[in-house]
Amino acid sequence: MHILILGAAGMVGRKLTERLLREGRLGKQDITGMTLQDVVAPAKPANAAIPVNVVASDFADAGAAAPLIAERPDVIFHLAAIVSGEAEAEFDKGYRINLDGTRYLIDAIRAVGGGYKPRLVFTSSIAVFGAPFPEKIGDEFFHTPLTSYGTQKSICELLINDYTRKGLLDGISIRLPTICVRPGKPNKAASGFFSNIIREPLAGEEAVLPVSEDVRHWHASPKSAVGFLVHAGTMDLNAVGPRRNLSMPGMSVTVGEQIASLERVAGKNVTARIKRVPDPTIIGIVSGWPRDFVTDRALKLGFTTAEKTFDDIIRIHIEDELGGKFAA
Amino acid sequence: MHILILGAAGMVGRKLTERLLREGRLGKQDITGMTLQDVVAPAKPANAAIPVNVVASDFADAGAAAPLIAERPDVIFHLAAIVSGEAEAEFDKGYRINLDGTRYLIDAIRAVGGGYKPRLVFTSSIAVFGAPFPEKIGDEFFHTPLTSYGTQKSICELLINDYTRKGLLDGISIRLPTICVRPGKPNKAASGFFSNIIREPLAGEEAVLPVSEDVRHWHASPKSAVGFLVHAGTMDLNAVGPRRNLSMPGMSVTVGEQIASLERVAGKNVTARIKRVPDPTIIGIVSGWPRDFVTDRALKLGFTTAEKTFDDIIRIHIEDELGGKFAA
Repeated sequence: MHILILGAAGMVGRKLTERLLREGRLGKQDITGMTLQDVVAPAKPANAAIPVNVVASDFADAGAAAPLIAERPDVIFHLAAIVSGEAEAEFDKGYRINLDGTRYLIDAIRAVGGGYKPRLVFTSSIAVFGAPFPEKIGDEFFHTPLTSYGTQKSICELLINDYTRKGLLDGISIRLPTICVRPGKPNKAASGFFSNIIREPLAGEEAVLPVSEDVRHWHASPKSAVGFLVHAGTMDLNAVGPRRNLSMPGMSVTVGEQIASLERVAGKNVTARIKRVPDPTIIGIVSGWPRDFVTDRALKLGFTTAEKTFDDIIRIHIEDELGGKFAA
Repeated sequence: MHILILGAAGMVGRKLTERLLREGRLGKQDITGMTLQDVVAPAKPANAAIPVNVVASDFADAGAAAPLIAERPDVIFHLAAIVSGEAEAEFDKGYRINLDGTRYLIDAIRAVGGGYKPRLVFTSSIAVFGAPFPEKIGDEFFHTPLTSYGTQKSICELLINDYTRKGLLDGISIRLPTICVRPGKPNKAASGFFSNIIREPLAGEEAVLPVSEDVRHWHASPKSAVGFLVHAGTMDLNAVGPRRNLSMPGMSVTVGEQIASLERVAGKNVTARIKRVPDPTIIGIVSGWPRDFVTDRALKLGFTTAEKTFDDIIRIHIEDELGGKFAA
């Protein structure tokens, strides 16, 4: 089976690539080749046992999808997007990449014809929901995005549902929780602090907490995110019906609970590196974000997280990113 | 104030035009000019007291919107669409007209800049909902279209919300119930019988009822539809917030109740012209349609129907379309 990953150079794309190459198979099928696309060429994996193509292309170009689809990938993981803040600041660019790019992709799939109907796994986002909403957002709550990014993700969910219903592809959209702990450097995303306050102290660095400890949010580890993608790429979708968009399982915790977990796992010296510096802008943004979900549909369909507690999320980070060690 | 009606040659567009020309004002403002657009030139109203431009253009042409927007209409009624059956049969045409056309329109508005922010009233549809759903669909039930038409309407709702949120226009999307009694000739739409069984017998003709009498559906008169549009064009939208998509009030009745109304209003001779000829295809299609709604948001925002009972809907038809007379 041939696998195409769009947006493969991002954090989730890289981790998905690693897992697929490590396992050599997706579900019951051997992987015979992979194509990794991104706007900058993804790193070519060293020592891959199978042929891996690396493609640099602009997903928003009308002609970018056709050559990728020409290889008839059996499974397509579509992770290509510009992030929320950028889509909000650059209106045209957001619609071009996050909406038009997806349409070019699904139309390129459709143009193949002859019964070609690949599995398309689209990474949607909890940004399809904006306040006000119930304390726990259920599987039937309506799309209420308060960002252009969330709007674009909502629209792509609808398109993928319709193209799937018409038999033009075999799509599923999965709404990832906020990924925590996100590896790498602190960034300026408003959500950055949820990971910063764990990752930086574990690395011996200070981290800024700009909101109060009672802020509640919805998390999953990078490992869980990759697990959701793999399951979405392999599961039997016939039972799912035409509603191919699902909120993924996650964990609802307050910032205070995150810090308590960090103290349990790594000690007081580590949590002492968190500096409280309230930021009214970030407090305002975060107040409109989802806090908790009921994800019965996804659970019933076999989606599971790799963690049971937030302590596990921290341990997964220490294990996967820090080689099992941290700055005590 | 200048008013632009897109899709003005359709039934609702014609009735809206008549009302606006008759009243000479929209809300508190005098109408100083109107532009009527459709793919075939709308009929030029006779004896209009104000200048009325008539434009034939293809709404799906990338350049069609700019010249219409160049006149800086203060209020735009966007009724342009191909209908459900056609959008389902002609996939590309549906997306071109029902989705791309709307994007060209809102981008043409945005391109004007300089604080130009017209009221945009978009006619959405209860086709954004597909079964299964609750017996009464509430204001927060999610978009579950089972047609490309419903998908396209859902997407336009999301786009108009986002462009409004960004301050690029002042939009509102209203989901019209099935219009009953639809004047004109019987057509092949699966929903046609809801009107046919009233309109044809009143005209002395036979009508076919293809479903059982316990089928329940959601209706509003043409007069109500025009009333919703006028209200949406004039109301203060500041209180509405970013969720600018609303299910309109209507009336939930069974086919049996429709026929009982017809008998009360017009007598047994008239209802005797309804012939029961079950059609499994239509029975199947209709079984997936919404039956009833809770429309608290719209009611709170001042949207009201012109009818209180289905008898009223029949009387409105006899009054507005038949000059007060019917074939007894």
